[in-house]
Amino acid sequence: MKSKLTIVKIGGNIINDAPILSALLEDFALLEGSKILIHGGGKKATEMANNLGLKTKMVGGRRITDAANLDIVTMVYAGLLNKNISAQLQKSNCNAIGLSGVDGNCIQAHKRIVKNIDYGFAGDVDYVNSNAIKVFIENNFAPVFCAITHDKKGQILNTNADTIASEVAKAMSADYKVKLIFCFEKNGVLLDVEDDNSVIKSIDKIKYDQLKQKKIIADGMLPKLENCFHALENGVEKVIIGNAEVVKGSQQNFTTLSL
Amino acid sequence: MKSKLTIVKIGGNIINDAPILSALLEDFALLEGSKILIHGGGKKATEMANNLGLKTKMVGGRRITDAANLDIVTMVYAGLLNKNISAQLQKSNCNAIGLSGVDGNCIQAHKRIVKNIDYGFAGDVDYVNSNAIKVFIENNFAPVFCAITHDKKGQILNTNADTIASEVAKAMSADYKVKLIFCFEKNGVLLDVEDDNSVIKSIDKIKYDQLKQKKIIADGMLPKLENCFHALENGVEKVIIGNAEVVKGSQQNFTTLSL
Repeated sequence: MKSKLTIVKIGGNIINDAPILSALLEDFALLEGSKILIHGGGKKATEMANNLGLKTKMVGGRRITDAANLDIVTMVYAGLLNKNISAQLQKSNCNAIGLSGVDGNCIQAHKRIVKNIDYGFAGDVDYVNSNAIKVFIENNFAPVFCAITHDKKGQILNTNADTIASEVAKAMSADYKVKLIFCFEKNGVLLDVEDDNSVIKSIDKIKYDQLKQKKIIADGMLPKLENCFHALENGVEKVIIGNAEVVKGSQQNFTTLSL
Repeated sequence: MKSKLTIVKIGGNIINDAPILSALLEDFALLEGSKILIHGGGKKATEMANNLGLKTKMVGGRRITDAANLDIVTMVYAGLLNKNISAQLQKSNCNAIGLSGVDGNCIQAHKRIVKNIDYGFAGDVDYVNSNAIKVFIENNFAPVFCAITHDKKGQILNTNADTIASEVAKAMSADYKVKLIFCFEKNGVLLDVEDDNSVIKSIDKIKYDQLKQKKIIADGMLPKLENCFHALENGVEKVIIGNAEVVKGSQQNFTTLSL
């Protein structure tokens, strides 16, 4: 029988809120069994770019990663955030190992092909090295991945953290019973974006199509949900979207996705 | 019989010279057997601090790491440099895994006690987790350590890279026959600092004391050589100091240390 693996993805709004992040990391440290944390950090990267007098260009919620911005995301995601998160987990006796997709060739990607928009050094994932990740897990490390990948030709790339979570979950599901949790600043997928109590408790593919047609799910939620269904369609056992308290397990208000 | 382990430490002047760094990383990738790379990066951190309008205070060649400078070294060492070095090694088919001392609790330190000078968030090494490093090596990863450590209480610390090299070499020598190579911009320890051909081929402790008395070894070379002898006195088999070409093994001009 496959053993359990919990994968938690945390977004930029949680990372930028120190007390919420700290509570979440303590909850993550207490999770039993094998686990992986995946983090974004776009807001902090934008702050750093501003401090360095660089402009951040975004198109459709996605960063245009020129060479200068690539250095910034590499510094902020793989350095500042990844190491501070790992240090906090180590403090809570969770044996965190902070990694990027470069390390152990864990996540290989290619530079996004230019169609209408040139996203620069944005990486689309080709391959997740589940064997390497398995070595870490089976030796009782908890991998902490930032959203940096590489092309195995020496080029670092900036990859969407939700996509990394989905791709890692998919790859690991060959060997583990994977539960994937997307944590963000809201309580789940909302019927009314202004009302945090309007959580849609469960969404299957039919309901998803209906919600898309009614434009209840739009903008940044669209790629997030696409990543959720991509994971479910590729062997991931359970996918939920909720706030930081979902990790603890006491929170009842969240969205469960199903096929 | 213990198996061989080669540990190479590279300094800031090599890291800042792209062609030399690139050649060295290709040589490192070709090294047979188990290996670890340890890198500094102080020059790049100073550049980044300048770009952010922060002042870098140095006392006796050592950085005063206030909170803002700690964030910078964490970003530059553990992010920008560690990931670019690891990506270049991956390109050369060396299965590099970029790490800080935080990751897997590999290197634990304490904040330096304030005596005459307050070095801020500078970390003096307490413990190297050779078991964790052994897991990586035995699974055919080549660990690449930056000079960032932590205190296991959530605090990241900035540690001298030569010291990390020496402490890691010492800890690993319980299980491996360790060769430690310090690579820097000169050909070795020089009799005349202005003449790169004046390499002192071998230095034992008696000669070291003589060279110190004559002030031939002074300034930054003193702590480097202290680290060399510390390693030799604690089980490390061989310690050499030379330029980037020493890694390839074709260079004959370098300094060998012995007790």
